[in-house]
Amino acid sequence: MPSAFLKHPFMSQHALSECDEGAMLRAMLAFELALAEVQEASGVLPEGASQQMSVQLNNADFDIAQMAAGIASGGNVAIPFVKQGRALLTDELKRYWHLGATSQDVVDSALMLLFKPRLMALDQLLQRCRSAALVLMEAHAQTLMVGRTLMQQALPITLGVKVAHWAVGLEQSRRRLQMVELPVQFGGAVGVHSGWDSQGLEWMDALAERLGLVAPVLPWHTDRYPIHSLGTALDAVVGAAEKIALDVALLTQTEVGEIAEPSVPGMGESSSMPHKRNPVRSAFICGAARQVHGHISVLLNAAAQPLERGLGEWHAEWAPLIESALLVEGTLEQVAVLLEGLEVYPEQMQRNLSATGGGIMAEPVARLLTPHLGTDKAKAVSAMAAEIARQESRPYSDVLAEVLAEDPDIKGCVDADALRQACDPALYLGSGYNQVVRAKNWLIEI
Amino acid sequence: MPSAFLKHPFMSQHALSECDEGAMLRAMLAFELALAEVQEASGVLPEGASQQMSVQLNNADFDIAQMAAGIASGGNVAIPFVKQGRALLTDELKRYWHLGATSQDVVDSALMLLFKPRLMALDQLLQRCRSAALVLMEAHAQTLMVGRTLMQQALPITLGVKVAHWAVGLEQSRRRLQMVELPVQFGGAVGVHSGWDSQGLEWMDALAERLGLVAPVLPWHTDRYPIHSLGTALDAVVGAAEKIALDVALLTQTEVGEIAEPSVPGMGESSSMPHKRNPVRSAFICGAARQVHGHISVLLNAAAQPLERGLGEWHAEWAPLIESALLVEGTLEQVAVLLEGLEVYPEQMQRNLSATGGGIMAEPVARLLTPHLGTDKAKAVSAMAAEIARQESRPYSDVLAEVLAEDPDIKGCVDADALRQACDPALYLGSGYNQVVRAKNWLIEI
Amino acid sequence: MPSAFLKHPFMSQHALSECDEGAMLRAMLAFELALAEVQEASGVLPEGASQQMSVQLNNADFDIAQMAAGIASGGNVAIPFVKQGRALLTDELKRYWHLGATSQDVVDSALMLLFKPRLMALDQLLQRCRSAALVLMEAHAQTLMVGRTLMQQALPITLGVKVAHWAVGLEQSRRRLQMVELPVQFGGAVGVHSGWDSQGLEWMDALAERLGLVAPVLPWHTDRYPIHSLGTALDAVVGAAEKIALDVALLTQTEVGEIAEPSVPGMGESSSMPHKRNPVRSAFICGAARQVHGHISVLLNAAAQPLERGLGEWHAEWAPLIESALLVEGTLEQVAVLLEGLEVYPEQMQRNLSATGGGIMAEPVARLLTPHLGTDKAKAVSAMAAEIARQESRPYSDVLAEVLAEDPDIKGCVDADALRQACDPALYLGSGYNQVVRAKNWLIEI
Amino acid sequence: MPSAFLKHPFMSQHALSECDEGAMLRAMLAFELALAEVQEASGVLPEGASQQMSVQLNNADFDIAQMAAGIASGGNVAIPFVKQGRALLTDELKRYWHLGATSQDVVDSALMLLFKPRLMALDQLLQRCRSAALVLMEAHAQTLMVGRTLMQQALPITLGVKVAHWAVGLEQSRRRLQMVELPVQFGGAVGVHSGWDSQGLEWMDALAERLGLVAPVLPWHTDRYPIHSLGTALDAVVGAAEKIALDVALLTQTEVGEIAEPSVPGMGESSSMPHKRNPVRSAFICGAARQVHGHISVLLNAAAQPLERGLGEWHAEWAPLIESALLVEGTLEQVAVLLEGLEVYPEQMQRNLSATGGGIMAEPVARLLTPHLGTDKAKAVSAMAAEIARQESRPYSDVLAEVLAEDPDIKGCVDADALRQACDPALYLGSGYNQVVRAKNWLIEI
Repeated sequence: MPSAFLKHPFMSQHALSECDEGAMLRAMLAFELALAEVQEASGVLPEGASQQMSVQLNNADFDIAQMAAGIASGGNVAIPFVKQGRALLTDELKRYWHLGATSQDVVDSALMLLFKPRLMALDQLLQRCRSAALVLMEAHAQTLMVGRTLMQQALPITLGVKVAHWAVGLEQSRRRLQMVELPVQFGGAVGVHSGWDSQGLEWMDALAERLGLVAPVLPWHTDRYPIHSLGTALDAVVGAAEKIALDVALLTQTEVGEIAEPSVPGMGESSSMPHKRNPVRSAFICGAARQVHGHISVLLNAAAQPLERGLGEWHAEWAPLIESALLVEGTLEQVAVLLEGLEVYPEQMQRNLSATGGGIMAEPVARLLTPHLGTDKAKAVSAMAAEIARQESRPYSDVLAEVLAEDPDIKGCVDADALRQACDPALYLGSGYNQVVRAKNWLIEI
Repeated sequence: MPSAFLKHPFMSQHALSECDEGAMLRAMLAFELALAEVQEASGVLPEGASQQMSVQLNNADFDIAQMAAGIASGGNVAIPFVKQGRALLTDELKRYWHLGATSQDVVDSALMLLFKPRLMALDQLLQRCRSAALVLMEAHAQTLMVGRTLMQQALPITLGVKVAHWAVGLEQSRRRLQMVELPVQFGGAVGVHSGWDSQGLEWMDALAERLGLVAPVLPWHTDRYPIHSLGTALDAVVGAAEKIALDVALLTQTEVGEIAEPSVPGMGESSSMPHKRNPVRSAFICGAARQVHGHISVLLNAAAQPLERGLGEWHAEWAPLIESALLVEGTLEQVAVLLEGLEVYPEQMQRNLSATGGGIMAEPVARLLTPHLGTDKAKAVSAMAAEIARQESRPYSDVLAEVLAEDPDIKGCVDADALRQACDPALYLGSGYNQVVRAKNWLIEI
Repeated sequence: MPSAFLKHPFMSQHALSECDEGAMLRAMLAFELALAEVQEASGVLPEGASQQMSVQLNNADFDIAQMAAGIASGGNVAIPFVKQGRALLTDELKRYWHLGATSQDVVDSALMLLFKPRLMALDQLLQRCRSAALVLMEAHAQTLMVGRTLMQQALPITLGVKVAHWAVGLEQSRRRLQMVELPVQFGGAVGVHSGWDSQGLEWMDALAERLGLVAPVLPWHTDRYPIHSLGTALDAVVGAAEKIALDVALLTQTEVGEIAEPSVPGMGESSSMPHKRNPVRSAFICGAARQVHGHISVLLNAAAQPLERGLGEWHAEWAPLIESALLVEGTLEQVAVLLEGLEVYPEQMQRNLSATGGGIMAEPVARLLTPHLGTDKAKAVSAMAAEIARQESRPYSDVLAEVLAEDPDIKGCVDADALRQACDPALYLGSGYNQVVRAKNWLIEI
Repeated sequence: MPSAFLKHPFMSQHALSECDEGAMLRAMLAFELALAEVQEASGVLPEGASQQMSVQLNNADFDIAQMAAGIASGGNVAIPFVKQGRALLTDELKRYWHLGATSQDVVDSALMLLFKPRLMALDQLLQRCRSAALVLMEAHAQTLMVGRTLMQQALPITLGVKVAHWAVGLEQSRRRLQMVELPVQFGGAVGVHSGWDSQGLEWMDALAERLGLVAPVLPWHTDRYPIHSLGTALDAVVGAAEKIALDVALLTQTEVGEIAEPSVPGMGESSSMPHKRNPVRSAFICGAARQVHGHISVLLNAAAQPLERGLGEWHAEWAPLIESALLVEGTLEQVAVLLEGLEVYPEQMQRNLSATGGGIMAEPVARLLTPHLGTDKAKAVSAMAAEIARQESRPYSDVLAEVLAEDPDIKGCVDADALRQACDPALYLGSGYNQVVRAKNWLIEI
């Protein structure tokens, strides 16, 4: 399929280059060689056997095309790989190859090995995003903008506190990702190390250590919690990224115009409209996130696998899992650039705060009036004034205070200064600043 | 990502080879050249312009790698493609290139063009499956086997009627697929042929005809019904295939052993267990089907696209859509081979019919006894006899009739011959044969 | 669960009242009584038996609570229902009750019977939406507004053509829904009418006719195409509705303000902000649509059901299927009201057309300049002028023509009138009007 | 909708009774009263106000039907609830009601409060399942059975180790569930405690403590990590349960018959087949799990919510979230009963071990022969003998050793005793027993 045109653009190019067939082959080989080392250390292989295997195979000419073709009859890549590996070994070593292992041991472990650098890369990207967010939070802790609920202007916030919420979202997913364990897989044909008795679990633990993976409680051929945990953690990351992209896309709308994606010559141009600058990074992030949700739904539906090995359920995991990693990494690369170079237009934010003629300050006004008019009347008066301000007054000019000052219910009973203050967004930011401080402390605590 | 190891094995290799970047490039070019022809025919391009374009571009050296790289800044492949195309044209033709079109026109139409041969291939595969199923239905119209509900033996059926159900499932999906329309996309930047007034729709219709696509009512940039319709039809096909694979996997279980996948040397072997033959085709089918369900869930969730062009929703469609086609085609290739070479073991079916010692015939027995004992008592007597037959008697030997013959409630009041007949699976096949005939008539009616 | 608070608000209240336990009970009873009638007509039941059954059961006191409780041990509602029904019959009729039927026959057929009025209601709602859309299309065929792609202003369209696209989306889904067939289910324990031979299919066909359902080719206990077809058609409807709601939500944003949901006293109010009017209908539509997508993904994943009856797959269909219908009906009720009462603010649309100072007209300007300057230069000059217009000029005032008029590259070579015309959105609506006409003809053709 | 017939059977009846509209109402009220207490403690409410509120509202007649009806215009249940609450208060208290709170604060917090007892119930059920599994592991640590991969017999395992794998699966999900945090929601209209400055976060923390919920870093109106975390943890639980049910369903197949669901009179009976006992619990578990996967896919797709409050995304969470809890609880109740009463048939397991005539022991045989014949030849000889044993010999009788003993390649070179031992499943259990011990230690470590 035209992957380079339709799928790879969403993915991390760096990760793609580190995750090709050769990488998978090396990971499978790393598993088999580590197994031989472990078995040699326990006396089952003659001294030097694992070293010889390593020498004979590490630079051997595995035939990737033939391996790919062999999957059709074997059902998974481990089968042709193991065959090729055996054929490449000298006769006396053949019997020590893939000893006690099964296809799923090879494939699952190799996937976990591919994931190790990816999780590290994701962590670093998330830290990079966090740093960028901290800078934005600090810089814009006092940058007024309007908060919007159900897509309607509601009450003032700051850009700093908005970014703080983004950053907390990302950091929660980073901490969850850090808790994900990548276990080695080693259990043999039916997961009980058939023929190897007590050595089975010892080898499993030793393999984990040697490969830098986690030792599971038991082999997990049909206990897919590790996959579920990994997949849903990836989805949490991409969800946090998608939320940022969604906000950015909404705030860059022509009529809103409060922020913009970092400007890069030629980026976001339309093929037909010269004036246009599309939020391309946001589009990539949202597009990738949606694909990840679909992939993870495959994993949820395939978590229950029959008996000692799945029939299709296991096979269905491979692509969704590894593609999710590449999509999430691509997504975070976009988010990092977005946050590091986010263009902010405070004057446009200020302008939008006045879009309703001051009407968004109806709540503080109602609050000010409540002791004088009672809750219901205060709300009614405030709402009516807001509506007048919105409809009849000039847009982009705060007239709410004036409208209120002329209200017969208010005249005389509320001080004009108090009214003006109640109508001033800058005085109605609640815990916005405190939230920035609190988030900052939490973000850097680890 | 290691696609050749983890994803391509599920896909049609033939389709993969017809659906690479070059194919996408050719499809995009076909769209642009057809557009030029249409515009020349309507007098907007000078005579011969489209022909010259065709000459200059059809064998031009488009740089696929650069095109792929250019997507990152443009957001979709049409942008770098259009740029390259323009650069490759002589100056006097540049102005006639991509006239009135937008990126989404190019990409959507190109995808529809890629789909045309795929839908034809799917239809042919489904016809091939239908032919194979018809052969099986005929050959096994009288081959007795047990029907199973909730995974428990229930009552006798025939293999013929089972295959008839499979065939109807596949054929329903084929007929649905045939109704799927692949519309051309042509609407320009905001879907209203800006600047081209009444010519816009005329060109759209002419383009459709020239490209062998359907003319939509209106451009469909954010009316994704065509994608929804196509995606869900593909899912219907794969669901019908998955049902067959699920049945095959269950019936090939060692203890059931009633059928087997076609035997191919080396196919389905285990890397560690020489005696084993895995139902690899079923595993591929089930594995692919699960991935398709995930892809289609992406399409369902992305069907609502904002305003005049999606932000991420559209982008999210590309890979799931085209990959679903390749997965479904790969799946049907497996199903065709499965049905054409299905190994059937009637004696094992016969043996399983006796697994309960005849207990599965409790219903006809109850029915026979009802006029004599009343409904409740008849059921109770029959159930108890079935339980005795199942538990105490030799397995794989029908003893129900004997057990019944000795029942004091029955003795004397029911004829022994009638009892034996009620216990004979071959006499309790209901509409099985009629269903085979009916299905056959329906399958070949078109 | 607190359904009335968390789930029912999304559903059609009318449909909810027509789809309770009593309705399901009546549907199951209708199936059984029709079966008895059919069997009586074929001579298997004595004359008058079905009439007596009807008399005895139609007003009998079925115990719904006990029936619900009985599901836990039986696995589906048909089992306790059949038991209660038998117990309520006089002895001589008991043997004719549920003759040749199985639980799944009862439940599947009852669900199809519940769906019949729902599909009719959906069709009527879709027709109501279509009528409202036709009115809007006509009224606003010339109402200028800006088209937006990737959430950025792009080029002018009309509200009429936008609504035409909505209407085509809805109508496509209506026509698809019309093609959905609701088949009767009748196959007995293993789907072959065990014990009834040639009568089985005859009864199935007669039952379909009597119940106003479709006669399937074969019983479809584990051929779930009818469910897949129904579920995906419902999803197509809700996707078309969701697209409208998404557009409405975006266009009602405070800063955009081009349309509003119909004003209803008290509707959309915030619990804390008196000035705010939330697009509540859009929220319900989008919220419901997302739930439907999840439900349908269950159906896709459960389409392959093992052997002659599913184990969990079938059970998993019930709630997602019926809830989807109620959610879609609720959604369409909202859409109908939305379209019938949509508030349109043409002056705000006009204002937004000027938001870029005329910059959105850069494309027609480039087109005008191309013969004079060549494609690339024309684009560059136009883009630069658009940027100047956007950034430096007063917002909400079209200055592009002025900026251009002063451009040294243009001065003298392009007529000022031509420039002004190129900058006039009302002259750049492409096929907008033609599309409205075309859509209208297509919408009313059936 | 006919919930009691189609949806509630999958749910915990106990949980259903604790999660009705009244429970939601009490949870919302608990939130508001705790808020008043916190505000009184901080001096904002006059002394005694919260106590008076409590007295006036705790036994007040909230009108649930009217509340449900009010959602249609408000958009969520908090709006009519807050209205009713205010109306029920005496005038001097009205102004202190819902102070500083927004609808989402009420609904999100109330949902978290509903979840608290549910998570505790789930934990207890998981512990109950763990205890039952430990008993089974101990009892069947030496109970031989065949392990099956891709649904084919592979090599021997024990029931004990199979149950150990189930138990580890469940316990992993329990530990994950324990880490899920249920945070209070309190942020006011736009999440920054508008009008309450530094008190906002203090109140949030105090509220959390008072309600027994977790204090989040920041309000999370559009940071849905808590929902994502909760939802995916629930899915992990149900996936572990589904795996058990899938195994049980497969092992209870008539031809396999190694285990059965606990026998309960009347349970699992068929409406038409007296002899049949359906694995109803497994069907309920699998049916529920599939519905949960669909619900959670809604949550994944709704995780990114726009700006300061979602439009539909938030609304879409309610039902899927709470229904998932009830479905998972219902599922675990079934799993607990399943494990506590699982019927085990060791003699049938023994019989199935012989189904291939000993062929499943081909691997140990090959291993035994390897030093004598070399890897390839050993595999070939073993495989051929296995095939002979499977095809030609009597089923259910181990003839592999005999076949081998007569093989000319082996005769003389391998000891007959060694051959017999290699063919003995009981001597080829690998780490099976060690795994049971290791799992047990891990299961009880916390």
